[in-house]
Amino acid sequence: MGIKGIRTALKVDLDKPARDQPGLHNRWHPDIPAYGKIANNEVVKIECLDWTGGQIGNNDSADDVKNVDLTQIHYLSGPFDIETAEPGDVLLVEIQDVQPFQDQPWGFSGVFHQKNGGGFLDQHYPKAAKAIWDFEGIFCSSRHIPHVRFAGLIHPGILGCAPSTEVLTEWNRREDRIVAQPPNAMNAHAGSAGEDIKERVAKEGARTIPGRPEHGGNCDIKNLSRGSKVYLPVHVPGAKFSVGDLHFSQGDGEISFCGAIEMAGEITLKFSVIKDGMAKLSMKSPIFHAGPVEPQFGPGRYLTFEGFSVDEKGKQHYLDATVAYRQTCLRVIEYLRRYGYSDYQIYLLLSCAPVQGHIAGIVDIPNACTTLGVPMDIFDFDIRPEADIVKRDMGACAITQD
Amino acid sequence: MGIKGIRTALKVDLDKPARDQPGLHNRWHPDIPAYGKIANNEVVKIECLDWTGGQIGNNDSADDVKNVDLTQIHYLSGPFDIETAEPGDVLLVEIQDVQPFQDQPWGFSGVFHQKNGGGFLDQHYPKAAKAIWDFEGIFCSSRHIPHVRFAGLIHPGILGCAPSTEVLTEWNRREDRIVAQPPNAMNAHAGSAGEDIKERVAKEGARTIPGRPEHGGNCDIKNLSRGSKVYLPVHVPGAKFSVGDLHFSQGDGEISFCGAIEMAGEITLKFSVIKDGMAKLSMKSPIFHAGPVEPQFGPGRYLTFEGFSVDEKGKQHYLDATVAYRQTCLRVIEYLRRYGYSDYQIYLLLSCAPVQGHIAGIVDIPNACTTLGVPMDIFDFDIRPEADIVKRDMGACAITQD
Amino acid sequence: MGIKGIRTALKVDLDKPARDQPGLHNRWHPDIPAYGKIANNEVVKIECLDWTGGQIGNNDSADDVKNVDLTQIHYLSGPFDIETAEPGDVLLVEIQDVQPFQDQPWGFSGVFHQKNGGGFLDQHYPKAAKAIWDFEGIFCSSRHIPHVRFAGLIHPGILGCAPSTEVLTEWNRREDRIVAQPPNAMNAHAGSAGEDIKERVAKEGARTIPGRPEHGGNCDIKNLSRGSKVYLPVHVPGAKFSVGDLHFSQGDGEISFCGAIEMAGEITLKFSVIKDGMAKLSMKSPIFHAGPVEPQFGPGRYLTFEGFSVDEKGKQHYLDATVAYRQTCLRVIEYLRRYGYSDYQIYLLLSCAPVQGHIAGIVDIPNACTTLGVPMDIFDFDIRPEADIVKRDMGACAITQD
Amino acid sequence: MGIKGIRTALKVDLDKPARDQPGLHNRWHPDIPAYGKIANNEVVKIECLDWTGGQIGNNDSADDVKNVDLTQIHYLSGPFDIETAEPGDVLLVEIQDVQPFQDQPWGFSGVFHQKNGGGFLDQHYPKAAKAIWDFEGIFCSSRHIPHVRFAGLIHPGILGCAPSTEVLTEWNRREDRIVAQPPNAMNAHAGSAGEDIKERVAKEGARTIPGRPEHGGNCDIKNLSRGSKVYLPVHVPGAKFSVGDLHFSQGDGEISFCGAIEMAGEITLKFSVIKDGMAKLSMKSPIFHAGPVEPQFGPGRYLTFEGFSVDEKGKQHYLDATVAYRQTCLRVIEYLRRYGYSDYQIYLLLSCAPVQGHIAGIVDIPNACTTLGVPMDIFDFDIRPEADIVKRDMGACAITQD
Repeated sequence: MGIKGIRTALKVDLDKPARDQPGLHNRWHPDIPAYGKIANNEVVKIECLDWTGGQIGNNDSADDVKNVDLTQIHYLSGPFDIETAEPGDVLLVEIQDVQPFQDQPWGFSGVFHQKNGGGFLDQHYPKAAKAIWDFEGIFCSSRHIPHVRFAGLIHPGILGCAPSTEVLTEWNRREDRIVAQPPNAMNAHAGSAGEDIKERVAKEGARTIPGRPEHGGNCDIKNLSRGSKVYLPVHVPGAKFSVGDLHFSQGDGEISFCGAIEMAGEITLKFSVIKDGMAKLSMKSPIFHAGPVEPQFGPGRYLTFEGFSVDEKGKQHYLDATVAYRQTCLRVIEYLRRYGYSDYQIYLLLSCAPVQGHIAGIVDIPNACTTLGVPMDIFDFDIRPEADIVKRDMGACAITQD
Repeated sequence: MGIKGIRTALKVDLDKPARDQPGLHNRWHPDIPAYGKIANNEVVKIECLDWTGGQIGNNDSADDVKNVDLTQIHYLSGPFDIETAEPGDVLLVEIQDVQPFQDQPWGFSGVFHQKNGGGFLDQHYPKAAKAIWDFEGIFCSSRHIPHVRFAGLIHPGILGCAPSTEVLTEWNRREDRIVAQPPNAMNAHAGSAGEDIKERVAKEGARTIPGRPEHGGNCDIKNLSRGSKVYLPVHVPGAKFSVGDLHFSQGDGEISFCGAIEMAGEITLKFSVIKDGMAKLSMKSPIFHAGPVEPQFGPGRYLTFEGFSVDEKGKQHYLDATVAYRQTCLRVIEYLRRYGYSDYQIYLLLSCAPVQGHIAGIVDIPNACTTLGVPMDIFDFDIRPEADIVKRDMGACAITQD
Repeated sequence: MGIKGIRTALKVDLDKPARDQPGLHNRWHPDIPAYGKIANNEVVKIECLDWTGGQIGNNDSADDVKNVDLTQIHYLSGPFDIETAEPGDVLLVEIQDVQPFQDQPWGFSGVFHQKNGGGFLDQHYPKAAKAIWDFEGIFCSSRHIPHVRFAGLIHPGILGCAPSTEVLTEWNRREDRIVAQPPNAMNAHAGSAGEDIKERVAKEGARTIPGRPEHGGNCDIKNLSRGSKVYLPVHVPGAKFSVGDLHFSQGDGEISFCGAIEMAGEITLKFSVIKDGMAKLSMKSPIFHAGPVEPQFGPGRYLTFEGFSVDEKGKQHYLDATVAYRQTCLRVIEYLRRYGYSDYQIYLLLSCAPVQGHIAGIVDIPNACTTLGVPMDIFDFDIRPEADIVKRDMGACAITQD
Repeated sequence: MGIKGIRTALKVDLDKPARDQPGLHNRWHPDIPAYGKIANNEVVKIECLDWTGGQIGNNDSADDVKNVDLTQIHYLSGPFDIETAEPGDVLLVEIQDVQPFQDQPWGFSGVFHQKNGGGFLDQHYPKAAKAIWDFEGIFCSSRHIPHVRFAGLIHPGILGCAPSTEVLTEWNRREDRIVAQPPNAMNAHAGSAGEDIKERVAKEGARTIPGRPEHGGNCDIKNLSRGSKVYLPVHVPGAKFSVGDLHFSQGDGEISFCGAIEMAGEITLKFSVIKDGMAKLSMKSPIFHAGPVEPQFGPGRYLTFEGFSVDEKGKQHYLDATVAYRQTCLRVIEYLRRYGYSDYQIYLLLSCAPVQGHIAGIVDIPNACTTLGVPMDIFDFDIRPEADIVKRDMGACAITQD
């Protein structure tokens, strides 16, 4: 006679340290014990902490962002064993809903300090900064970035299945020679693991910072919102699925690193196993299919900026989309600061508002060209080039002295 | 009593060599003489050759693509003096319409040979290939890539104002140390210039291949379609505006280089001068505002693939969106080849169909993550992962032996 | 430091008869006492029963629909006094969210029996019928109408401010000569009113069935979903705002009368008073501005049927859009029954799925032409005319014997 | 080697009286001779006059509208025999493009005089009025309705196949008792027919004013734009397809009767015959499938007005969507006149701009509720209720003295 309510597979405790909660973990490792079991085709709710595990407060100081402890990051919910899932299968995860907690209707966007985390524009904006966002139903607004309000494109920053030992070994191999976050025993949390495993996880466990091709993970894809279907490779028996890093909203690139509107909350997921899916779909990395309810502004409601792979010192880079996108971001900051916003306010805004970052041209030697579309309807004033420029009192975001 | 018809500011002759037409040119240089004058706020039509100037034929051989003469490329229409435009102004160009010629309702997409132009995936696909696209009103389809049909997102690949001497000098300086296309006297076309100027343009004139931050140029932005407004920096008196490289459709990145559906045709433009616009808009690079009539598939009608900055040899690249986008493209090829398409067919298709290439995450050290959304409705069969895979006879695109 | 949670202005008790809950009422009358006060610019949550007050069960019989007691309908939450609102003002209500109750994730669509309520097609379909819909996050599906699933366009069927005595008198006058539901003392619920008022409300109070131009009320506008702003005329001091009849989804016309997916749940609203708004906006009836998050299928994803004001007996009606829309609905039923659905299943589906009912032509004497667009993506099979017709086992909806 | 250009199946002569052109006709009758043949699966261009056959001029007087000769209306292009089409088949017509003539880039919207044609609001607005619209690529604007500009949703007002004798007899029977336009010999044009047939057509031929369920005809459905597929019943051998009444744009209802932006131009169509399609599709009236390129404003960019079936004299009508829609239109006029527009200007605008007219509620006895959504982006000022009202000099449309 119909479903009677949806099972909550994991509850988190907002008042207890994250490290003491056995349903959380903050490393990727095949040996982290499953926290629970989910049936094939089951729908469950899973609660999540914000990615810092509660280190950031709803206040007007950016000191907590500056001093954030990144060794703890990210606290993920899980892992969960999915019935019948085996290596080589694909786990189809339907994101049926994402919600902040009812009694915690706020989130934060941060710019990390250049010396602790940094971000995409840290050469230009080295200080730590923060904006608090209040949620009103599907909308959010911030006392730190006035005259802006938008509907959230709510989504999880991280979801994925545990790596196998082989996959984990490969990660540790290839990330060794590059400025990555290598395994770090400090503050490693291996969920409900016993001492032996805990030690192994701390030593070998992959950091959750990057997304990775083999399983997805921290992809920070803003479009994985309500109604999306995500197809994930399975590497270990039971899949050992984890999820976390909920975002009320994010822009393409999440440029300030802690840039999405980070929040604690609850995600409703449906799991189905596609047997032998990796071979059937010729799938090496996750694919997805977004839902029909993304905020739609209309193609004519974006103001779009162009950027090229020539850096601010006039140096030419060869088809470098990363350099091009950084330039594109700087173009937006130069444009929007005319209205009275500080650069840090805009930097935060571009990180969390639903801006569209496209690779436009990637073959016209030697310049890559990228674009960044800003939805004009998130502002309560007219930002079209033909409209009058009125400088407003835009207040300030939280920011550190140095 | 209303307008009576729109003036055609330039007619091209499809039966005459491009190099002999004084309204065309194929280098950027401030000294190329203006071909005509356009009033402030005037609407005009401008005819354009395809970017190769007619080198590619409507046939089933890719030899013409393989042997294309890139020194001639691109033939642009113009330059035009825009009344009242002065350095420091912004030229607002409204793209009111773009149409192929009525009696030439076809275009081509090509994969350049690795030794003559190459492309984004030339390490994987070194041969030359070609697909011819037939236009039926707003739609196109190809005998070389069956079971696909879509509405064109028609646009010019190139529009921009001439560089000043200073800007040109800077281009030549910074592109000198990198694998760019340096000035090349061979086949340089300086429009209606006399011998002296012709020689100077041939020697100094910037190639039209790359887009450049100071003026736009060959940005290959698929969204500059009907109804767009583009804001362009003006560097010389009269602006000396040029346009060309019309595309019936293109995907983000235009990955096979000659990848858009290239065509000859006619563009209708309205010009307005914003006095002192560069300072007013704090503008260093073009910005634009798309129109309301882009093909809209709905957010739930894309199948989206993820890619990361780990290359196919397992090498880790640091936040490199270019590497990530290449991987994303390869993921799509692996997926779509299951239906019977050859890799070259898919490579061509990703270049010209309205695929969405996004920068998803650019801060999660060390991996950049990009996504590529394929509109499912361009296929006449169901490409969702949950649908049955039926292998079809997909014929073949034109391709060279080596 | 930011909001800490949103006040719930009214809690309903699902286990207690609606008639015994003082925060509910089921007539429009200026004398029904305000249940509570809401500040200008305040955001509150308001809980609502389903419109029947719990008469319909989650089971496979349509007897409860057949025997529904319409004298009780609708149970509305309120009325609420809005601080500073005076007659002549406009109350701006922002619908920030609508949600079903977490532990009651289902709703129902019903076809009323021709002798008890009826509906738009009751001449053709006189029996009572019912479908139960299960909610999975933003989606719903029904065991009674298989192979269909869609995202809800969730909204309140009713919201409005109380009529003044003058307005109420006018309603009772003009509805007197027509087959309306006149005031009916039976089961009238006057909220927290004392005996005197209760009696007056029972005698004079307007039924909540119709929407009315002076205040809105039961408009059943499917697009008043998350993110909408509604501008409502104020007729009495404090506005006396009420809301109810929550719908998980509805199609244009709500044709089977009990046709939306009716549910109990919670709505989050923000109230702002526009002083003297009726004169400022020259406003006689409500206006609204929808939000950006409606499910978007893309303009090319609807299959649209045409209907005209010639009835099924061949009788010509003069520019009658009502007759035309009925014909349009019948055309859809004829089309969809080819897949194995019963007519009652389709009748229910057209009532609750997000179909688009347009007035196409209303001046071409003597025929009105209306259209009904069915979003093809709600089906898990291909309903395009060019696709093969496969008859499926479509089970059955609940239906009464006569 | 690909198509070489599209055949033009009919050319019209703008300088010759419509009545003298054998490829035109202005009645529906099975005996009107086919003007030409079109192959199954062929794509052709067909030129069309405006619906009045050139009676309306590009000037500032509405006298031509007042004195329009409606006996001539509409001049249709055709009929065409479609190879293999037989009664009982369905003709699938794909609208591949619609364009105004290049050298006639303008159209007109008219309000007919109450004594000659009238319109939806002629009780309120009895005079004749006119606005001329200039086309700039995909956009249009009018010197008679300033501060408005929009992209056309270009489409044919009429397309359909000829009635059989039986169908024609039925039309004449049922329209006899109602204020329709009965057959009228005056100015009847039977294409290339000889005298005998001409006389019969004049006497029996159905007027083209209304759309009709059996074949479509003058449906005035704004969404039959570029990229649409229309499925039409075939009643006579060869189908005898005709098309005309091209509109650059139209709003739902086309309320002022001559309300669309009427124009001469060219339509590109592809024809395919579905054998025995009427039975296969259980089809009694046309159905269609719109294309993906309609102007998209986003769901949040409409200001929507509500109207109910209570007329302006306070009379209650029973579930009458026609009355409700008229009230809805009046609500918009009351709102927009605050900006300085005359009522006739707004009446014209609502007829031709892409407004959305929905049937919201059609079962809530006794009131029907309809809505009319006005796209806010067609105005160059802010029409949101919360924006300041600035009265502008809005000039005037052409209008007659009485």
